[in-house]
Parts: sequence; C-alpha cells; structure tokens
Amino acid sequence: MNTKKNISVCFTADQFEKYADGKSTVVVVDVLRATSVISTAFMQGVQVIIPVQNLDEALEYKGKEGCIVAAERNAKPIEGFDYGNSPFHYINADVAGKTLVLTTTNGTKAIYYAKEHKVLTASYINIEAVAQHLIEEHNDVIILCSGWKGVFNLEDPIFAGSLAKLLLETGSYESNCDSLFASMQLLKSADGNLFTYLSDSSHRKRLKSLNMEDDTRFCLSPPVKSDIIPILKDGKLVVL
Amino acid sequence: MNTKKNISVCFTADQFEKYADGKSTVVVVDVLRATSVISTAFMQGVQVIIPVQNLDEALEYKGKEGCIVAAERNAKPIEGFDYGNSPFHYINADVAGKTLVLTTTNGTKAIYYAKEHKVLTASYINIEAVAQHLIEEHNDVIILCSGWKGVFNLEDPIFAGSLAKLLLETGSYESNCDSLFASMQLLKSADGNLFTYLSDSSHRKRLKSLNMEDDTRFCLSPPVKSDIIPILKDGKLVVL
Repeated sequence: MNTKKNISVCFTADQFEKYADGKSTVVVVDVLRATSVISTAFMQGVQVIIPVQNLDEALEYKGKEGCIVAAERNAKPIEGFDYGNSPFHYINADVAGKTLVLTTTNGTKAIYYAKEHKVLTASYINIEAVAQHLIEEHNDVIILCSGWKGVFNLEDPIFAGSLAKLLLETGSYESNCDSLFASMQLLKSADGNLFTYLSDSSHRKRLKSLNMEDDTRFCLSPPVKSDIIPILKDGKLVVL
Repeated sequence: MNTKKNISVCFTADQFEKYADGKSTVVVVDVLRATSVISTAFMQGVQVIIPVQNLDEALEYKGKEGCIVAAERNAKPIEGFDYGNSPFHYINADVAGKTLVLTTTNGTKAIYYAKEHKVLTASYINIEAVAQHLIEEHNDVIILCSGWKGVFNLEDPIFAGSLAKLLLETGSYESNCDSLFASMQLLKSADGNLFTYLSDSSHRKRLKSLNMEDDTRFCLSPPVKSDIIPILKDGKLVVL
C-alpha cells in the first residue's frame, strides 16, 4: 500500500476530542518542558514514567520503593515532591532503574486525554527517533500540542511544524489541516532561531521570570540527542 | 488614564470560555463568510440581523412579515431558506428595511458564545471602522475567531492579525497572547496576498469545490468598504 497517511496538529489538550479517531498514532508534545523532561529522565535510566493528573494521586506514590515523585504547577516545583519539571533535576541524579511519577500543568493532561490511542511523547531530544518510527509505522498521525491551560502556546506548534516537516519530506504523508499549515509557517518564521523567536512568547517569559532560561535553552536546543521513544502502555510510559 | 489595553485572540468559538472575562469588547470574526455576509447585508439596508443557533429556530421566522431567513451548513445553503451565506445573495436583492434571521455553521455560534460581552462583528469590509471604534473606546479586546466546527482555521486568525495590527500601531495596546503573536506572524507570511496564501487552507478548498471562489475573493478583498459596525443588542445585531 502506497496510500499517503494523514497528519494533523491539535493545538491544545482540551481540543483533542475534535481530532481523536481511535486509530491514529498520537504524538504528545510539551516542549517547555514535560516531554523534554520525559526524554531526559529515560536517558538517565528511569525505567517507567507514570503520568498522573493531580497532586494527590502523585503523593500516593511517595515513599514507595523505587518510586520518585515529581510535580509542577504554573511552571513551579511543588513542595513535598522529590523533583520538578526541569530536565536538570534528572541529570546526574540517582534515578536509574526507578519509576518516576509525574504530574505537570499541561503535558500529563495531554497524555491522559489521548490514552485510548497509541501515544508517543516527543521533544527536540528525540524528534529524529520519533519521526523515524512514525515513518516506518506509516499510520495516520495526530501531533497533540499540550498548550497552556487550554489555550494556544507558541512553542508546541513550532515543534509540531518541525516534526511534520520530517514526515512530509518523505512524500508519504499529506494534510488538510490548517493548524498543521500554520505550524509549518510559524516554524519557517522562526528561521532556525527558536530561542530568540520565542522571546515574546508567554511561556518563555514565564520561565524567564522564574530564572529558568537554562531550561528553555536545553529544551529548544538540547546538547544531546536520544533514540529513546517513550510509549504509553497501560497508563505508563515505557521505552518502546 | 493612559494605561495600555490588552488584546487577545481566541482561535475557535468553542474555546471562548477560556478568554471570557465579562468586560472586554469581543470582535467576532468569520471572514469566510458569516461576518462578511453580515457587513454586506447591513450595507444593503437590512435593519436587524438575528443570529440563531439552529435551523428549527430560524424556520420559526419564515413567512413572518419583514423577515427573511438564511441558513448555511457545511458551506452549503439549505433548502427551504430564502438566502444562504454568500454575500452575493444580498447584493441587489430586496432586503432593505428587513430583518435577516441567520444561522451558519460557525459564525452565529461564536456570536452566541460571546453574548454576555459587548459584541461587534468584523470583516475586511468594515475592518477600519471597527478598529477606529475600538481605538476610541479603548477597552480590552478579544478577537474571537469562529474557526471550523471547533478547530482552527487559517483565515480568521489572519484577519485577527490584520485587526490587531491596526490597534497595536497606535501604541495604546499590548498583548501577552501567543495566539495573537501567531496571528500577526501568519499575516506577515501571507505577505499581502491572502487569496494565494489561503490556497491550501481547508475552507478555501471547500468553497472552491462548491464553485464559490467569487465569494472567497469578495470576502478577502472586498470591492467596497463600509463604515457600518454591527453590534449585538438583546440577542440581535443592529447598526452601532
């Protein structure tokens, strides 16, 4: 079969039901920072990541053997949790072989909404590996941007543009989706300099005000790449 | 008071609750075609436009003295209704002094969602007049794109970019809204040629397949301009 497969981009987690079809592969994106943290944690040897929806649920795992719990709300870490939503929390940390329980403002919600589909998570750390897997699989793809509390953010659609570009270049995909077109245009406008382009974006400013510029740089232009593709199995992210 | 006022852009009618604040002026946009039809109908002398949510409600007005009823679903006119959602239906037609009852796939829904706010409707026909009114009023502004059945379309955000540009140029407005930033970038990418830029957009293709290219040209680059600003009063659009 040489039929072209479809790619669409959903701009916020809350809108996912408009795109859900029960059969596409869903790539969840929360570049700043949840899916970048997920890539980083797996690179550092975390074995399983359990994305949960609320702080109470996360705290139930606290103290359980082999578990670390991490939480973020409004970009800030939460008292009482082992880790936050910064990739730097996981680098050179004692996380190998452990189960990470993670709850964030937007990213973990997006994963939850898509859970009836095949769900992968992507960031600039593993974008090439994810693209390669999608191309080999040759299924319809929904790129699910996490957004910010139900509204459009700039960084996730730009990432969606980067990922869609890799897929469309193969000639095996097509799209009739205005949000994909817009994502590709925004990527083009950014002209290779995401950090500067996002200067006026709401979340870069939010992270800047919290002295988290290093996180932003790391997530937009990661110093290392990873072949690890996180996939959701029975509500848990594992390495594909 | 010289405080800068805020502008935000909401990409779909369904997301309006995330932006609603009860005090901003809401500008509803459905460039292809409802708000362009509304501008045109008022220019042709229609006195009142009643936007309704469903066909049944619209049909109740049929045959009432001084009323004409118009309906559109999936870009097509509906049998049994006097008019559809094409601006050409209203030009040189016997509509002066009449009440137009209108139901469309997206635009009339957006008006309904925003009804607790001060609501204006805008199109490329009356964009300058709307901008001038907003600047004089100097209130916070939400530009509400109708979208297509709950998902992002390309033409309304580009219009939002055009309107926001007129406001921001005064120096009296500011924004921390990623969707506004994206709208301005998309407008910039279109580089003055909306008709061509939208060639690959889903709704232009939809209208093209229905032989409605003339409607698209008319709405994107109207041959005449209007000073009429439609405003919602007690559920009815009247001339401000």
